[in-house]
Amino acid sequence: MNISTKNKPVPTPVSECLYCQNNETLHRLMIKIGDLKVSQLFLFKEQSHPGRCNVVYKDHGVEFHELDEEQRNAFMADVATAGKAIAAAFNPDKINYGAYADTISHLHMHVVPKYRDGYGFGGVFEMNPQKILLTDEEYDAIVKKIKAAL
Amino acid sequence: MNISTKNKPVPTPVSECLYCQNNETLHRLMIKIGDLKVSQLFLFKEQSHPGRCNVVYKDHGVEFHELDEEQRNAFMADVATAGKAIAAAFNPDKINYGAYADTISHLHMHVVPKYRDGYGFGGVFEMNPQKILLTDEEYDAIVKKIKAAL
Repeated sequence: MNISTKNKPVPTPVSECLYCQNNETLHRLMIKIGDLKVSQLFLFKEQSHPGRCNVVYKDHGVEFHELDEEQRNAFMADVATAGKAIAAAFNPDKINYGAYADTISHLHMHVVPKYRDGYGFGGVFEMNPQKILLTDEEYDAIVKKIKAAL
Repeated sequence: MNISTKNKPVPTPVSECLYCQNNETLHRLMIKIGDLKVSQLFLFKEQSHPGRCNVVYKDHGVEFHELDEEQRNAFMADVATAGKAIAAAFNPDKINYGAYADTISHLHMHVVPKYRDGYGFGGVFEMNPQKILLTDEEYDAIVKKIKAAL
């Protein structure tokens, strides 16, 4: 195995992590739907893709490829649980999955339903299209719909 | 559970799938590195993100959230294997993962190393930046480096 000698990047500290801090930045972007086995499930407030969620792993500072088998399987089971619930609640034509977090050391997976006649079908999804925000009542209705399908 | 009555989309047929057909479109986009447990590992020819790969599940027409537990765990183990090899071979600052396939019914996960001073750090990655193609010799060198780290 070819082990590079370059130093590993320093992880973002917990004190700067929106997920660990459960801060205003997080609340501006997401609404917590509930707890899954090893993660939290959030509704993404930007709803260009109706039903778009985010599955956030419980621990800070771990990369996906560094998870041990048990933790990886548990996390991906949570991601699949989210996908199944979104499929049941919204019946999208496709579900996309994406984990980026280049500048936040906190593993999370965007779970993004796509609709054949909807926004951005056929391409990748954007980090945040910044186009469609809803009322609190509309968010409540979506959260309830997903909770009912979990 | 809220089961929608809308019909499920018709999956793309095998006859139109670049992965199943192993056709010219596939070869224009990717180079096979090798077989993993339940998938094939490809190098993505567009190398704006040095070491970018694609893990392609063995079966056509199955959605990620529909995989049974065993198959999901096996696929994600392959994705992690790819991530570990890319980390060892290229020491990126981050690895992104993305599954889209809105218009192809064949599960695959892009595994995309990101570099702090490199292309597109801090955002999502593009489906295909169409910027950096290499020579056959350069592709060979990258494939060898990843194979050695598998």
